[in-house]
Amino acid sequence: MTEDLPFTLPALRAAYDAGQRPEDVIALAYARLDAIGDPGILIHDAREAALAAARVLGPREGKPLWGIPFVAKDNIDVAGMPTTAACPDFSYVAERDAFVVERLLSAGAICLGKANLDQFATGLVGVRTPYPVPRNALDPEIVPGGSSSGSAVAVAQGFACFSLGTDTAGSGRVPAALNGIVGLKPTLGALSSSGMIPACRTLDTISIFALTVSDAFEVFALAQAEDPEDAYSRGLPAPSLSPVPPRLKIAVPTRASLVTDGDSVQDASFHATLTQLRTTGAEVVELDFEPFYEVARLLYEGAWVAERTAALGARLTEKPETLHPVTRQIISSGLNLSAVDAFRAQYRLADLRKTCAELMTGIDMLCVPTMPRFVTVAEITADPIGPNSLLGTYTNFVNLLDMSGIAVPCGLRADGRPASVTFLGRAGADASLAAAATLIEQGTLGATGWARPPRPLPSGESRAGELPVFVCGAHMSGMALNGELVSLGGRFLKACLTTPSYKLYDLAGGPPKRPGLSRQEIGGRAIAGELWALPVASVGAFLEGIPAPLGLGKVQLQDGSVEVGFICEGIGVEGAEDVSEHGDWRSYLDHLAAARSREAASAPVK
Amino acid sequence: MTEDLPFTLPALRAAYDAGQRPEDVIALAYARLDAIGDPGILIHDAREAALAAARVLGPREGKPLWGIPFVAKDNIDVAGMPTTAACPDFSYVAERDAFVVERLLSAGAICLGKANLDQFATGLVGVRTPYPVPRNALDPEIVPGGSSSGSAVAVAQGFACFSLGTDTAGSGRVPAALNGIVGLKPTLGALSSSGMIPACRTLDTISIFALTVSDAFEVFALAQAEDPEDAYSRGLPAPSLSPVPPRLKIAVPTRASLVTDGDSVQDASFHATLTQLRTTGAEVVELDFEPFYEVARLLYEGAWVAERTAALGARLTEKPETLHPVTRQIISSGLNLSAVDAFRAQYRLADLRKTCAELMTGIDMLCVPTMPRFVTVAEITADPIGPNSLLGTYTNFVNLLDMSGIAVPCGLRADGRPASVTFLGRAGADASLAAAATLIEQGTLGATGWARPPRPLPSGESRAGELPVFVCGAHMSGMALNGELVSLGGRFLKACLTTPSYKLYDLAGGPPKRPGLSRQEIGGRAIAGELWALPVASVGAFLEGIPAPLGLGKVQLQDGSVEVGFICEGIGVEGAEDVSEHGDWRSYLDHLAAARSREAASAPVK
Repeated sequence: MTEDLPFTLPALRAAYDAGQRPEDVIALAYARLDAIGDPGILIHDAREAALAAARVLGPREGKPLWGIPFVAKDNIDVAGMPTTAACPDFSYVAERDAFVVERLLSAGAICLGKANLDQFATGLVGVRTPYPVPRNALDPEIVPGGSSSGSAVAVAQGFACFSLGTDTAGSGRVPAALNGIVGLKPTLGALSSSGMIPACRTLDTISIFALTVSDAFEVFALAQAEDPEDAYSRGLPAPSLSPVPPRLKIAVPTRASLVTDGDSVQDASFHATLTQLRTTGAEVVELDFEPFYEVARLLYEGAWVAERTAALGARLTEKPETLHPVTRQIISSGLNLSAVDAFRAQYRLADLRKTCAELMTGIDMLCVPTMPRFVTVAEITADPIGPNSLLGTYTNFVNLLDMSGIAVPCGLRADGRPASVTFLGRAGADASLAAAATLIEQGTLGATGWARPPRPLPSGESRAGELPVFVCGAHMSGMALNGELVSLGGRFLKACLTTPSYKLYDLAGGPPKRPGLSRQEIGGRAIAGELWALPVASVGAFLEGIPAPLGLGKVQLQDGSVEVGFICEGIGVEGAEDVSEHGDWRSYLDHLAAARSREAASAPVK
Repeated sequence: MTEDLPFTLPALRAAYDAGQRPEDVIALAYARLDAIGDPGILIHDAREAALAAARVLGPREGKPLWGIPFVAKDNIDVAGMPTTAACPDFSYVAERDAFVVERLLSAGAICLGKANLDQFATGLVGVRTPYPVPRNALDPEIVPGGSSSGSAVAVAQGFACFSLGTDTAGSGRVPAALNGIVGLKPTLGALSSSGMIPACRTLDTISIFALTVSDAFEVFALAQAEDPEDAYSRGLPAPSLSPVPPRLKIAVPTRASLVTDGDSVQDASFHATLTQLRTTGAEVVELDFEPFYEVARLLYEGAWVAERTAALGARLTEKPETLHPVTRQIISSGLNLSAVDAFRAQYRLADLRKTCAELMTGIDMLCVPTMPRFVTVAEITADPIGPNSLLGTYTNFVNLLDMSGIAVPCGLRADGRPASVTFLGRAGADASLAAAATLIEQGTLGATGWARPPRPLPSGESRAGELPVFVCGAHMSGMALNGELVSLGGRFLKACLTTPSYKLYDLAGGPPKRPGLSRQEIGGRAIAGELWALPVASVGAFLEGIPAPLGLGKVQLQDGSVEVGFICEGIGVEGAEDVSEHGDWRSYLDHLAAARSREAASAPVK
């Protein structure tokens, strides 16, 4: 086996296809760990157990993560291993695997050990631990990031193929940016929290680190399942990665509300990424981010600190000396908060949620720098709180707003440091965000120097539990009603054409203006549209929202298939304008807009 | 005008149809109030303003509550009237109508005044007020119930046609039971709370009192709308009452978990109502209610009291003498609760929500006694807290579990007191609950002695999770493809007619022969068909099985509703035979069969 075998899912699978043995891959992992020589990555090194597990792994069939090495943040239980949450006095040996760990092990993954963290997952820097501080994989002068410090470094160094972190305020995203890897922060409740030490129970989620978006997403999808034992677990549709809709509408901070703390390189890098996003066909619009920052301030200045206080229980007052001094200082502040404070903060959050939801009307997702700038170990030693707070600028508000997110590396900044942006979307948008992230992910994989594997082309096929639906009007991507499809769990599959046997009519009514597709015996032509996959459970709701004369019937496509799609009652097209010559609804609307602006330009000055 | 004009919507509308003037109806209302001689009902008597409003009411058209008299609980703003929340020192004159009041006034309703309450809506007894305590409309020895005491008595005495209460822990249901009227407690967020003094902001809702279920529901439906200014307002589908589900599955407390505090009459009355429910076709099953009671205990023993504390602000510490002593005692306890307590209580609630949701799997709704037993004024004077808590047994858990509810009078108990049960359902189930309540509502209307108006005719209704689908061909009951509907979980709701604007065509193809329903500008007629309820999860599969030129769109029905149903592409009916004259597909097929047998009978014997 090559010592340089990349620990990505495609490379490991290829190695196993070629006859490689899991125990050799696991041995290679530990050889790498020893070569890295960083005692801060793992709190518990599980090499004996991992090698033993690799030897008895059994048949590969039906195990999508067969022989894939990972580490778990040490606030997540792995049976037989100690859980410390980076507080040695707290340590206990877990009797059961956390729900998510159990799913990964059942899929054949092998746990290499338990990774270091900011104690009790409180921090974004990675230095708040009584164990050796993990070194940033790319530059030891920079903090490793936290709280999932060891998890991020383990992946960035090529020791683990993926890792589990947790993310309450950014702990699954900031360390990804600092180490040049992917950090997937799922929708709250998508991954069970059973067997995870809570930080803020209403805001916590397990998160996934990996070298590529597709690896992170695949692990996430395998880990997701509703857990009847976790009150905050949600029954969400099984996520699957799909092609990116051609016309994403992405909101970014206005220049006035972009926070880089004076780092002009970060500013330039972010805007270069936006330029690249635009070349993919995305529309980038600016939003004043102040309401989001106000939510972010609620997290640490407001009552949610008391959730951390609640999680620590009596330790804070009875054994304060067992806590890291900075951790103790932060979490103690929760003792002084009243229930009245807690409820008032929730009222304020409810108001801000409404404001932010309105801001996001018509927006597919947000794109932000993952952090304002890099922070050095020296800085955080001098001021343990300030730079930590700065790092949370773009992450603290996300779970309070019940949003999903993914931090993705996008090449190098002008100074050679890794560039990273985060896509943020509504609850359940995990797949759309990951798809968008694949548009711009680039650069080397963490600190490994491995070549980036070719981007998998998502299939454009619907899956079990989905119904392909042909849309040719306001539901197409970037158009007025596309949000309906997306909010119902729809995924873009592909652009396509009907058979040359249809006419397209501009129907009366609206806004929005809507077309009627009308099948013809003779004189029809091919009309362009889009095929979307809709979860079958959403079809009823979709249908209810469709007004007469439109409905869903069968549409004949050029490739010979017949798909469910928009049809129109005969009465609807009577007297309506035939706009088939434009070929599709988007071209027709563009034509109308152009005509209007010509009229406006030529109008006499009054 | 008869002095005995019943203040129900049907009777008042009939009076207005007959030329009655609103100012005379309003004058009649106040004449009744004077005759009742209870100075405790209203805190603010608005007779001058109400009479003036009645005189300038304008045309009736488009105003469904034209001239309908109501009162508002005095923790809800009515512009120009004082709002006291039963705390004189708190009093201010409202500049704006509460959102809900504004909707009712816009619909033509006339506000008679502001009704007494347990101070700051804290209590279920109605005696915690510095104003005169309203007398129970049926028996002055019994408490009037609270906190919406005046609102309930005003309706029960026939002074107001309906009233607004509020309901956090049962304030919209317990007084209904005590005064023999209907109390509709909507889904949280269905009615805006803008302009209402909060009790527990996360658990409050405005509620509706009326003499009949249909009156209460109609007012509720008119009051409902999403309010962009209320962070807790929800965009819910517009509710509509008419049909009653044919086979309800209703859960009730096991005998062991039924709480009547030793009142065997209440026990017998409740079981008599269940017997009656069974005769309507409902299936009644027993559940151990302990998890619901545990939620109920969270409300007053747990952290939510701090929401009341938050609502009172500095008054509690700076002007405690302005508060009713019992109110002060209860709400002060919130000062001692920490944010940690508040979050821990929410974790416990999240667990219990999951438990209760599992208990309710497969259950349409719960049915409980509205209260365990009657409570006398003497009792509550002797012990201001205990009997109050007892009254909340079946109400305290409801808003914490985000359930909807309706308290409905169901005749008299063996001792002549009014019997009342409450139906409780999931969020959004308001219409189903009201429909179920109409199955058993009976007895006199509060203290009025008026005859109960005829009940709206019951018919089939779809449930949450179902989509009504209009079918008019081979999917109708007993026909070739009906099995498809049934095997997908479809349920027959009712036979119905389209608007007279369709033609029915015998389409090419088959077997089975299928019709095409085609909407017409002119020359159409009403086509008979059937409305079926299809589980939303099955709609995709149903749609996949429908061949061109058919599809599902929107069909206009004779009753004014628009339902999802079969439509047909224009190409399909070209050249097809118009068989509309037969009125429906079944009659046409019968006609064909008859013709065939005539042909067969007259054919020469070979």
